Amino acid sequence: MQQEHNLQTARVGAFHDEFNEKKAKKHLGLISRIPRDAADCPNLLDMLFLQIIRLLTRAFADDSARLAGINVGAPAHHVPSADFGLIGLAVMGQNLILNAADHGFTVCAYNRTTSKVDRFLENEAKGKSIVGAWSVEEFVSKLKRPRRIMLLVMAGKPVDQFIESLLPHLEKGDIIIDGGNSHFPDSNRRTVYLAEKGINFVGSGVSGGEEGARYGPSLMPGGNEAAWPHIKDIFQSIAAKSDGEPCCDWVGDEGAGHYVKMVHNGIEYGDMQLICEAYDILKRGLGLSGKEIGDIFAKWNKGVLDSFLIEITRDVLYYNDNDGTPLVEKILDKAGQKGTGKWTAINALDLGMPVTLIGESVFSRCLSALKDERTRASTILDGPSPKFEGDKDAFVADLEQALYASKIISYAQGFMLIQNAAKEYNWKLNKPSIALMWRGGCIIRSVFLKDITNAYRNNPDLENLLFDDFFTKAIHKAQSGWRNVVSKAALWDLPANLLQAQRDYFGAHTFRIKPEHASETYPEGKDIHVNWTGRGGDVSASTYVA
Amino acid sequence: MQQEHNLQTARVGAFHDEFNEKKAKKHLGLISRIPRDAADCPNLLDMLFLQIIRLLTRAFADDSARLAGINVGAPAHHVPSADFGLIGLAVMGQNLILNAADHGFTVCAYNRTTSKVDRFLENEAKGKSIVGAWSVEEFVSKLKRPRRIMLLVMAGKPVDQFIESLLPHLEKGDIIIDGGNSHFPDSNRRTVYLAEKGINFVGSGVSGGEEGARYGPSLMPGGNEAAWPHIKDIFQSIAAKSDGEPCCDWVGDEGAGHYVKMVHNGIEYGDMQLICEAYDILKRGLGLSGKEIGDIFAKWNKGVLDSFLIEITRDVLYYNDNDGTPLVEKILDKAGQKGTGKWTAINALDLGMPVTLIGESVFSRCLSALKDERTRASTILDGPSPKFEGDKDAFVADLEQALYASKIISYAQGFMLIQNAAKEYNWKLNKPSIALMWRGGCIIRSVFLKDITNAYRNNPDLENLLFDDFFTKAIHKAQSGWRNVVSKAALWDLPANLLQAQRDYFGAHTFRIKPEHASETYPEGKDIHVNWTGRGGDVSASTYVA
Repeated sequence: MQQEHNLQTARVGAFHDEFNEKKAKKHLGLISRIPRDAADCPNLLDMLFLQIIRLLTRAFADDSARLAGINVGAPAHHVPSADFGLIGLAVMGQNLILNAADHGFTVCAYNRTTSKVDRFLENEAKGKSIVGAWSVEEFVSKLKRPRRIMLLVMAGKPVDQFIESLLPHLEKGDIIIDGGNSHFPDSNRRTVYLAEKGINFVGSGVSGGEEGARYGPSLMPGGNEAAWPHIKDIFQSIAAKSDGEPCCDWVGDEGAGHYVKMVHNGIEYGDMQLICEAYDILKRGLGLSGKEIGDIFAKWNKGVLDSFLIEITRDVLYYNDNDGTPLVEKILDKAGQKGTGKWTAINALDLGMPVTLIGESVFSRCLSALKDERTRASTILDGPSPKFEGDKDAFVADLEQALYASKIISYAQGFMLIQNAAKEYNWKLNKPSIALMWRGGCIIRSVFLKDITNAYRNNPDLENLLFDDFFTKAIHKAQSGWRNVVSKAALWDLPANLLQAQRDYFGAHTFRIKPEHASETYPEGKDIHVNWTGRGGDVSASTYVA
Repeated sequence: MQQEHNLQTARVGAFHDEFNEKKAKKHLGLISRIPRDAADCPNLLDMLFLQIIRLLTRAFADDSARLAGINVGAPAHHVPSADFGLIGLAVMGQNLILNAADHGFTVCAYNRTTSKVDRFLENEAKGKSIVGAWSVEEFVSKLKRPRRIMLLVMAGKPVDQFIESLLPHLEKGDIIIDGGNSHFPDSNRRTVYLAEKGINFVGSGVSGGEEGARYGPSLMPGGNEAAWPHIKDIFQSIAAKSDGEPCCDWVGDEGAGHYVKMVHNGIEYGDMQLICEAYDILKRGLGLSGKEIGDIFAKWNKGVLDSFLIEITRDVLYYNDNDGTPLVEKILDKAGQKGTGKWTAINALDLGMPVTLIGESVFSRCLSALKDERTRASTILDGPSPKFEGDKDAFVADLEQALYASKIISYAQGFMLIQNAAKEYNWKLNKPSIALMWRGGCIIRSVFLKDITNAYRNNPDLENLLFDDFFTKAIHKAQSGWRNVVSKAALWDLPANLLQAQRDYFGAHTFRIKPEHASETYPEGKDIHVNWTGRGGDVSASTYVA
């Protein structure tokens, strides 16, 4: 029933949108033919004519704007029925809506290109407590007060544009949540700007990729704390759970939520780079097969390294192409990035914090992107061929410790950065909650983050993660294996094919195939997405990075 | 004679400055007691009174400004006699003036705090073709046309302020050169802004520290190319020479000069970090004494590493305190930085260029700055004590190759960055001239840069330094020693005491003493400058970094 109603509204709305657009264009076309400035009309008569036309123009323009902006065909007033509104129906937005509906919330969905609303209501949203809107006004009118509106649109101008288009329809106390990958200074600015208008702004980090959004992401909301009591229930309901606790809590003032998400992504860059280097050492250093390496990752996933990224790496390594060989080896080693890792490294430099591991990971992606130059270099420059002699099992055990130690250093650096940012930007920060939010739902979720949560629960003022007793012991234990691996691996360089597979796995970020492995399924020069697990969606990410 | 005249003018000017300042303050004091806005005066009478006062105020303010800004006591018109004018009499400015005077140019010196003009004329400038000015107007009036004015003031607002104070007195075709450590986007902006006013702006990198400025710096001018024919003679005369060629040439458009200087500083950070790591390996890894290490650097300075920084490191290592032990070992290992290395790393991230060596060097300085935290960490965290077994001489030879290979990589990265920036910012860039400018005069000057100059002369479109035959061979030859050192040195961490000594040596950047070595000569917690060679000035740098 609900669905049928939605579809009807959809069609009516779409028709009127089109109708009004044509009408508006007609008026505006007329206006555009009128000379705009006295400079174009040198004689007096023309100037007088211009004045008259200007007055008329203004009336026409108002009329046009009203016609263009307001969906007069749609019912003017709705009974506000939705607990939550979401704008932006790319894969992340759709999945968050479905997630919220699963938890008993009625959600109103809107998208600038309204055909997406129709398609969503007719497909994924069918039979769920999801209603659609085909104009901003209709969208706002369908929300209960205080309105809770989440934007999942491209970071940058589109966020500001949607905020401006929403403002005339909102009331004091309404809440706008930006769930996109906005840079934290933008969220600082928007918090202040909207507070002046009585609107409570929240900038929320959202991590977990497609699947996270659908079944429980990690949510990192910050901004105007007055909003928190009104969104806490929804946010903590749809968030991932770890040991029964939601992976979502209030982070802190202004852009603190997006800041913490930015550092999360930086750490993610680091974790992935470490795994890729370990893979390369196992493959080229020890000469193991994809299956053998997959087995090692499967084993590591039961120990201190137990984490989402180790798990998906196992899956990626086990994933064979139709010819029975691992697909990962056919992927072009040219890594993409969407900027949040870079922001972290730049911010670290700005604050004078030595966040070296993330910095190197970002540079590694830059280097991998210079594929043409690297290919030319490979014809000119030689390196020694790695030849491993010794106990392979012992070396693999050392490698596990090396990965673990490097991870500890990277997270210690990341938390040091966050602490310093809070000082620098004068944010009240809910420090112990940060590791808690990352324990589940997000890309870097791991057993390891439970230990970090414990460290900060034991001592919320912990100066450095390495000063916590658990981690002091861990780093001492891992040290000799770590040094052994670094010492041996001074011979090998970076692989980016696995990294691209990981990014496609969790974020649908696509990859390209090596020209020599191109086929009908995997055409050369095209962005390819593979459903690595058989679960999840088949929409590739356009506006969103995990 | 000239000198006497200078002194007289100085005294008269100083008196009038003080007199006018007092007069202006008196007026402005009066004004500040007047209510400024109608909001402060609710009744009509007050508002009328306010209007009257406003009119009076404007007259007073104009008068005050005229009195404050114009040195009415000084002779109104001079015969323009100076070839070159320089504003900013910190150590770099003073030395550049003396350098220009030595080359037969008459230079006019000005400083906002005019007592510095007096002191300079009475001391260092005595008997040289140097005249002083005690107001901007006087300064401008003493310059031949087109006026060539160099600013050596603190980067940022002071540059804009001086530009604004100069503008009313300049004519079309006059030249303003900013020789400070400005960030290149500021020089982009100033080039465009001043071109609109008919003034030719030049942003020039100046490197070489105190001694360079005095006896021949490396100069990297960019901006409005129309200025170049008018400043070429002066610039190339005062610049350092390498094989008879001046270490100065036109770099390129807008901020290209400051950009190249920025990358120079980034490379300098890298070179210094490499040397400090080599020092640490020799000291803690091989257990050598300061004298023994100094001898190694002396030997290296005759081979492929022959360079200014290796040379001063030798001197620093030979420099003993009164008690006969090396001073370097008493210096607090907490490194300073003034931002240009950071800018380079940030810009590399922005352009997606993997300039890893500079990035790591900047992070190392950040880490060294966290001295308190590192001290606490040292009581909690243990590392293995380095124990070297094997042929020390062979290892030292490997270390030389490791340093050389790392340098090649760092310079290849730096040039890659510059090439990419020119593409990104649409600058016409005089590429082969860059290495040429760095061959002499500047901090990174070296034999090595002659090889780079040759590489770019052989092929100005060289994609990457490593693709040049000379460097391809060099890196292949250096590779095994390099890998051996990296592999062994996975055990040791960073020293910043030597780095501070180097910075104080070439840039008078000062250092602090370790508390346990504090004395009357070297007090604890104070910024200390040592005249490491017995030559050069004893002014410590305030506004300037090499």
